[in-house]
Amino acid sequence: MQPDATPTTKAYARPNTARLLISCPDRRGIVAAVSQFLYSHNANIISSDQHSTDPEGGTFFMRQEFHLEGLDLTKAQFEKTFHEVVATPFGMDWKVWYASEPKRMAILCSKYDHCIMDLLWRVRRGEFDAEIPFVISNHQDLEPDVRTFGIPFHYVPVEKNDKTASEQKILELLKGNADFAVLARYMQILSGDFLENTQMPVINIHHSFLPAFVGANPYKSALARGVKLVGATAHYVTSELDAGPIIEQDVARVSHRDDVKALTRIGRDIERNVLARAVKAHLEDRVLVHQNKTVVF
Amino acid sequence: MQPDATPTTKAYARPNTARLLISCPDRRGIVAAVSQFLYSHNANIISSDQHSTDPEGGTFFMRQEFHLEGLDLTKAQFEKTFHEVVATPFGMDWKVWYASEPKRMAILCSKYDHCIMDLLWRVRRGEFDAEIPFVISNHQDLEPDVRTFGIPFHYVPVEKNDKTASEQKILELLKGNADFAVLARYMQILSGDFLENTQMPVINIHHSFLPAFVGANPYKSALARGVKLVGATAHYVTSELDAGPIIEQDVARVSHRDDVKALTRIGRDIERNVLARAVKAHLEDRVLVHQNKTVVF
Amino acid sequence: MQPDATPTTKAYARPNTARLLISCPDRRGIVAAVSQFLYSHNANIISSDQHSTDPEGGTFFMRQEFHLEGLDLTKAQFEKTFHEVVATPFGMDWKVWYASEPKRMAILCSKYDHCIMDLLWRVRRGEFDAEIPFVISNHQDLEPDVRTFGIPFHYVPVEKNDKTASEQKILELLKGNADFAVLARYMQILSGDFLENTQMPVINIHHSFLPAFVGANPYKSALARGVKLVGATAHYVTSELDAGPIIEQDVARVSHRDDVKALTRIGRDIERNVLARAVKAHLEDRVLVHQNKTVVF
Amino acid sequence: MQPDATPTTKAYARPNTARLLISCPDRRGIVAAVSQFLYSHNANIISSDQHSTDPEGGTFFMRQEFHLEGLDLTKAQFEKTFHEVVATPFGMDWKVWYASEPKRMAILCSKYDHCIMDLLWRVRRGEFDAEIPFVISNHQDLEPDVRTFGIPFHYVPVEKNDKTASEQKILELLKGNADFAVLARYMQILSGDFLENTQMPVINIHHSFLPAFVGANPYKSALARGVKLVGATAHYVTSELDAGPIIEQDVARVSHRDDVKALTRIGRDIERNVLARAVKAHLEDRVLVHQNKTVVF
Repeated sequence: MQPDATPTTKAYARPNTARLLISCPDRRGIVAAVSQFLYSHNANIISSDQHSTDPEGGTFFMRQEFHLEGLDLTKAQFEKTFHEVVATPFGMDWKVWYASEPKRMAILCSKYDHCIMDLLWRVRRGEFDAEIPFVISNHQDLEPDVRTFGIPFHYVPVEKNDKTASEQKILELLKGNADFAVLARYMQILSGDFLENTQMPVINIHHSFLPAFVGANPYKSALARGVKLVGATAHYVTSELDAGPIIEQDVARVSHRDDVKALTRIGRDIERNVLARAVKAHLEDRVLVHQNKTVVF
Repeated sequence: MQPDATPTTKAYARPNTARLLISCPDRRGIVAAVSQFLYSHNANIISSDQHSTDPEGGTFFMRQEFHLEGLDLTKAQFEKTFHEVVATPFGMDWKVWYASEPKRMAILCSKYDHCIMDLLWRVRRGEFDAEIPFVISNHQDLEPDVRTFGIPFHYVPVEKNDKTASEQKILELLKGNADFAVLARYMQILSGDFLENTQMPVINIHHSFLPAFVGANPYKSALARGVKLVGATAHYVTSELDAGPIIEQDVARVSHRDDVKALTRIGRDIERNVLARAVKAHLEDRVLVHQNKTVVF
Repeated sequence: MQPDATPTTKAYARPNTARLLISCPDRRGIVAAVSQFLYSHNANIISSDQHSTDPEGGTFFMRQEFHLEGLDLTKAQFEKTFHEVVATPFGMDWKVWYASEPKRMAILCSKYDHCIMDLLWRVRRGEFDAEIPFVISNHQDLEPDVRTFGIPFHYVPVEKNDKTASEQKILELLKGNADFAVLARYMQILSGDFLENTQMPVINIHHSFLPAFVGANPYKSALARGVKLVGATAHYVTSELDAGPIIEQDVARVSHRDDVKALTRIGRDIERNVLARAVKAHLEDRVLVHQNKTVVF
Repeated sequence: MQPDATPTTKAYARPNTARLLISCPDRRGIVAAVSQFLYSHNANIISSDQHSTDPEGGTFFMRQEFHLEGLDLTKAQFEKTFHEVVATPFGMDWKVWYASEPKRMAILCSKYDHCIMDLLWRVRRGEFDAEIPFVISNHQDLEPDVRTFGIPFHYVPVEKNDKTASEQKILELLKGNADFAVLARYMQILSGDFLENTQMPVINIHHSFLPAFVGANPYKSALARGVKLVGATAHYVTSELDAGPIIEQDVARVSHRDDVKALTRIGRDIERNVLARAVKAHLEDRVLVHQNKTVVF
């Protein structure tokens, strides 16, 4: 009940910056080459993170964010020149993302509201720089809530014995309209074929501290095992169930007093926070994947 | 993306129970007297918590929750009989709350949406057993969001130099219509007169780890001091600013990378979770106040 | 660098109390009977905790701690009378432990020092009310450190292909000389026969957040899976590896920067704290085991 | 109880590296200049961290760790050349620290053993790369424990009304024999004169979550205020009591059950862990001070 300044404005304050992401075999001179390139084109570096799995023969990762004011290259020029001058000699896997182009985030959900509502609110509040082209669900329950935000809602029911049709429909919706997808407690297992065909990262929130309690009903399993903490894990989806690269995890303390309903309630707060942190990191190009693990800058 | 059971139903599953809350000077025989009374009237105790500040000359606190099925007393009979047989001999300050009577929770807010939206969602999701008679705000910004939930919204603007009129208006709204009030980032300091006249508990969420950073702009102060954790504190409001009995606190890790905007964003997640836990404890009659401190069972 | 009061004295301040532990089928009247019994014999209850897995047909657990001053029964009388008057009618599994009799805690270790040194220091500092009859190890490395505390050290090497002789030797040492044993990073798997023959609780600290990473080298597995938190679990040992009832768990945050050596270092602090909390709870008779899970009051 | 690999060897595995620390006014080209310099002298960068308080007109901080193998400069040459070629043009405040020269850490303590024993154990275990020239104490209680580690112990009693003599004695001990000092619960307030004359960083552990509960007896104050978390803060000491730059903080949950003795016990585990993390960061040259705040890489 204290008079602070006015709340943050609800539009995301998009910075006039670009993010350069690099991974390549580690060797001497990478940082010098990249920073010399940026400096010579008058880019002002705001933040820089790097990591090497091993300075001898390992993989090098880098994320640099720089102001575009003063940069003497257009985006096309940057991509061409950097490719020739720096990326090719060092064998880099790289991309540059301009913050002026927010990522398009498709959300899939089922009946649970806590994760999707949290994402929608964070976008509206200006915490996330994302555009949400639509929400897809195999149930109609959350349609009114989603429409409140002015976001299209696609009901794609799933046939019990054949998911092919629904996955095909989802693919059609995603293609060309989203940069990545988030499974906000979407209660269907997606096929390997589907994942391959999406050609985009898919982030899932699993309601356990992976690798403990893979699969269905983890809170029930957690109760049965008598754990003293429950957790949640946000990860990129791969064809192996709940085994993709972990982006973020967290836990909360529970006790013998808590039944499955209580674990579920306590877990919801962890799930939405973990998913939000993972989505924010992805939106800001802070996550690099390497051999089923992530580097999160 | 795992097929669990159906989401929890959204109506709060109200148990057919009562909660007995007691505080009195500690001495031998209290537990025996209370449990003997409940047993003799066929009450089945579900949970029991007790605490003594000092077994010799201290204060004793107790919360017992029991099933009403089988109880051979009406509520009026219970109150009369318990008063005579147990409470009076032991000099108890006590009350019994039937879970069939949900508490009426008035919410006051300003422009920040994260705490109030979180409370409304939790009520809708069935996490809280509360009825929200209305929301009061000194700004109109959140009216559409509140109305989405079908909850009345009262706009009570505050004159800069004279809060008397607005406080009077709020008092009139609260009187007889609410059992307690929650300041969900309500950005006005309430007067001692107002607090005295409400005759009900008022819960506030302060965006710092009290007693650090009392007053306005705690995130700015946290940044200036260079702390490595930011926190939030839910407390009952007293006439002394940010000094009332603390119900719940939590913190999150921050670093030199985080500016005031980042601290504010990180802090929001702590604020809403801490407030929710405090409100839930209050709704379930788990909080007893003693000498500006709380016992939270 | 502030002048506080003098440090706590290093002898454990043993209270003149007893702890009554009960588990039995839940039904009406248990609390009334127990508290009436204690009151009628002039016991002053200091703390009381109870839990029921289900008020209808579940199991009821209770821990009551009471002052012995004024109690009108000797220990033998208490055990006889309580057995007849309360325990038998309710079918209770129960025991009473007098705080004047500290538990004898045997410690087994190998080469890692962090857990055993932490336990020894806590005993010396007066944090634990335990007597340590001896330390057993399959290596001689820690003998000088243990002897510094004036505690006997038994070197019991383990034959690679036949553990029978070493387990037999350990059994002989334990029999009659210890109330429970702690595996403070003892790097040998104990046989089911051994565990059955010890006739005492055995507490282990496992260096992962169970049930994730059962077995050897959990930090290596944690690194391979790319988890963002590492944990430790204290549990009672059963014949199934790392699957016994969990007493306590905790985690710490790690990142892509941390290799196995770093995870091991970070994990050590979690291991010793989790083990210490579990041991303290056990020493204070706060842990009740039920169907491979624990109730920790 | 799982057979892992052998415990880590107890000697610190000192890497053949150097750490370059820089702070200067932020402007374009710093990273390019530094990394170009290192590359041109064949240094292999292992890790690099940087931070800017504001890319426009702020202060820039950088820490780079690089392998010495292949470097074509001696330490003296490095210092001379880097100074001329890079540091001077950019107006840098900088230093380079060779990991082959462990820091000499003097420890001051009083009667509490938990922080100092933890530091000594970590050094012995090879967690810290530090040499401990001696321990200074105003009490003799911990002398036997310190001597167990083969470390000299200086008893420097403090006159109640005049600290001048003891501070003078401590200064004489420190001068030329230590690179920094750690107050491991040293219960004397050091004068501003003393701090100025030490000419070295002094790290203190304060047993509260600063800025809450500055000064003596913070656990008593925490109990009086009824907080739900207690904390500890490691900071560099300045002439203003408990107000120096914070290096690390952490908290633990407490409840109404915990009296001052329990808060003290719970707090001890936080104190030693927070102090250890701060000391480790300092030893690894990860902490840069700027305007009473720290950047911790």
